[in-house]
Amino acid sequence: MRTVTVALGEREYPVRIGSQLIGQGGGIAEILPAPRAVIVTNETVGPLYGEALPAGLAGAGVEVLGVVQLPDGEEHKDLTTLARVYDELLGARADRKTAMVALGGGVIGDLAGFAAATYQRGVPLVQVPTTLLAQVDAAVGGKTGVNHPQGKNLIGAFYQPRAVIADTDTLDTLPDRELRAGLAEVIKYGLIRDPDFFEYLEGTAESVLARDREALGQAIHRSCQNKADVVAADEREADQRALLNLGHTFAHAIETGTGYTTWLHGEAVAAGMVMAAEASHRLGLLCGDDRERIRTLIGRCDLPVTGPPELSMGDYLRIMGVDKKADAGRVRYVLMAGIGGAFVTGDVPEEVIREAIEACR
Amino acid sequence: MRTVTVALGEREYPVRIGSQLIGQGGGIAEILPAPRAVIVTNETVGPLYGEALPAGLAGAGVEVLGVVQLPDGEEHKDLTTLARVYDELLGARADRKTAMVALGGGVIGDLAGFAAATYQRGVPLVQVPTTLLAQVDAAVGGKTGVNHPQGKNLIGAFYQPRAVIADTDTLDTLPDRELRAGLAEVIKYGLIRDPDFFEYLEGTAESVLARDREALGQAIHRSCQNKADVVAADEREADQRALLNLGHTFAHAIETGTGYTTWLHGEAVAAGMVMAAEASHRLGLLCGDDRERIRTLIGRCDLPVTGPPELSMGDYLRIMGVDKKADAGRVRYVLMAGIGGAFVTGDVPEEVIREAIEACR
Repeated sequence: MRTVTVALGEREYPVRIGSQLIGQGGGIAEILPAPRAVIVTNETVGPLYGEALPAGLAGAGVEVLGVVQLPDGEEHKDLTTLARVYDELLGARADRKTAMVALGGGVIGDLAGFAAATYQRGVPLVQVPTTLLAQVDAAVGGKTGVNHPQGKNLIGAFYQPRAVIADTDTLDTLPDRELRAGLAEVIKYGLIRDPDFFEYLEGTAESVLARDREALGQAIHRSCQNKADVVAADEREADQRALLNLGHTFAHAIETGTGYTTWLHGEAVAAGMVMAAEASHRLGLLCGDDRERIRTLIGRCDLPVTGPPELSMGDYLRIMGVDKKADAGRVRYVLMAGIGGAFVTGDVPEEVIREAIEACR
Repeated sequence: MRTVTVALGEREYPVRIGSQLIGQGGGIAEILPAPRAVIVTNETVGPLYGEALPAGLAGAGVEVLGVVQLPDGEEHKDLTTLARVYDELLGARADRKTAMVALGGGVIGDLAGFAAATYQRGVPLVQVPTTLLAQVDAAVGGKTGVNHPQGKNLIGAFYQPRAVIADTDTLDTLPDRELRAGLAEVIKYGLIRDPDFFEYLEGTAESVLARDREALGQAIHRSCQNKADVVAADEREADQRALLNLGHTFAHAIETGTGYTTWLHGEAVAAGMVMAAEASHRLGLLCGDDRERIRTLIGRCDLPVTGPPELSMGDYLRIMGVDKKADAGRVRYVLMAGIGGAFVTGDVPEEVIREAIEACR
């Protein structure tokens, strides 16, 4: 088992990464102040671990008051489902000291995390992410929330878990496409701030995709370490944390332009990172070789290096707000001054953005 | 103008108490990171200050994007009204840096505070309490939330404001009965931890009730100082903050037993504090003289010193959970070892509780 510590002072917590953690209750009993818990999961993941996790928790001395099983899918990450979670928590007689254990992907982590942040003004939360994307990104760092018809994650809270238990065995049942989408966010950490990790991935991408335990474990560990470092330095996204949005401005256009139906988030981020690399190259910040290394690694992972053909240049610019003034008067991008040298800038000519998109169509 | 500082490290904030603060925008402009705000208020308070506050804010350079006017009453402090606030914030194009200004009593403060805690994962909050109860209690300390059909404040967050602006002029329009109810919480601070303040109130109760500016200002200032000290020492109610619940176990029985319709919260707390004094006296912790001083001061303020006649002993014991095991196996009470010496105990014989209630029927 590998462990990463998210250093947030009195709210410091461990991210545990390894095999067979769920069946052992994830070592949660040592962490929880009270030996009672409610598991929140979905209809897909619940049946897979619906016996192992409660048994593991019970074996560790944690009484499971109930299992809340929600419908699967981003469309259920809303206030209506949240209200249902509150009802079920009350039905299970969960009190202020009862822990919530979020078992699932990013949707469950965000929703159950927000429920934990707000039930009785906050109860202990343990994240048990079961997708690669959630293990390397969503479960670490304390962003929780639900969607509003007008936009994603518009309602939420920063609320750190007491522990993150990333059982790599759960990835065995993850569809290949979702594994690859998760890998996009893994590559992202290399591009943002860890050039050695990027190089490591260039040497091991196929092993990770083949679910080699050692390669996967190492990739998750290093990703979580990078995420933990960024979160510890800037918990509430005042500056540094915004770097984690590398590729996301373009990705947002792709996801919105395709109605969040055909592209997985990680796939859109993959194409978005290639666009960010193109823009960085055009500004003289990223050499041609590095731009190619990025495009090549993403392509080797069977992730898209171009956007959806049906999206016009006008669609991109409109959704990204390039055609109108944004918050502080201009759109902000995360670009790269070399691999591992991401930075935020509001100073990118529209022409460069157009060229970067055009190069990836 | 008097100022109390709530010392919470990087989240430290001022409580400003005085006359004509609303018309000057409360000095909010110096505090807010961004010069934009949305005011959340109710149909009763909104029309009274619906011009003065926006004008005051505008004069201080704060752009008011909108005024959200909610129906008045505890029954609207729920998830449905909360969803409406989110909708209106989005309609007003409030972003992550737009401040929410909660203008009203405890219900508005709790609801708008929770909306601020959760809109876009948290936006700056300014509390402008307009009742005595809210000025001395609810607006200070960061408890926010809404009710659930199964109980009050079951959904919420600890979320500190950037400032509390207690304009004492707003009390001019407060009904006498509500002023008295607020005074119960003022007296509470003396009983919990400030015997000199209790003595001060014995000398000035009539002046406070007559809305004498100096006496009122002093009572609010000293109350907020006590609340700030307790909150700074124990923000999330791990121990000390529970002392603020003096009288509240009995009060909860009174409010629940009468369906939250006939008794104001402060009135129930008044009677509850007399019961706590009775129990403390019976345990040899509070002398007979002090018990009488408590009963006398509360009576002089025209607050109830006995519970509702229609509530039976069985009602009290059932609602308070004396008849069944509570959380850690027993009901916890806040009692007094002398005036100003409140402490929490789970070790009170049922017989003493019965006698205390009986003495106040």
